[in-house]
Amino acid sequence: MSHKYHVFVCTTSRPAGHPRGCCTSKGGGTAMFDQMMARFQKGMLWEKGVSLAQASCLGFCGNGPLMVVYPEGIWYQPVEAADYDEIVDSHFKKGQVVERLRVNPGH
Amino acid sequence: MSHKYHVFVCTTSRPAGHPRGCCTSKGGGTAMFDQMMARFQKGMLWEKGVSLAQASCLGFCGNGPLMVVYPEGIWYQPVEAADYDEIVDSHFKKGQVVERLRVNPGH
Repeated sequence: MSHKYHVFVCTTSRPAGHPRGCCTSKGGGTAMFDQMMARFQKGMLWEKGVSLAQASCLGFCGNGPLMVVYPEGIWYQPVEAADYDEIVDSHFKKGQVVERLRVNPGH
Repeated sequence: MSHKYHVFVCTTSRPAGHPRGCCTSKGGGTAMFDQMMARFQKGMLWEKGVSLAQASCLGFCGNGPLMVVYPEGIWYQPVEAADYDEIVDSHFKKGQVVERLRVNPGH
């Protein structure tokens, strides 16, 4: 394993009215990625082995906006700035999953 | 866990001469993604719980072209069509890691 946590943020954008919707229209997408990246840079998270990437559709669009944390396979549906803060501070810095923001797509 | 295998292909492209290079200039990128997607569609791999996504830089650019398979955290450096075939047939269909194409970035 090369990253302690490898975080993928869905940055898919679909046209308005598309039947699947998209994470971008639900407040995620590149806006979420940029919010997370700012926190990664401020906390220098790569030095802690945490890597962040944009991803195309992760599936489970109905659960969006989505990010997934591997290798654990923890899925989050963060909505606001405080959610991003909590995921970074609790999970990525302390290793404690944020259950209140967790979703279990496909189950 | 919601995907048996969640496969991310780096589709980063950097300008010619960039000091980090990129997976695209090494034969990966969207060309690799399209090659893999064709095999996923032919094999209907999503029915086997295997999901494929494009990703921004995965780190470890010197090991490119890269794809990573989670939750196992197996990294591959495939080069040609036969490599894609082998990864799909051996790993994604039979669960057998293709050691000859594996890299261990960061170690």
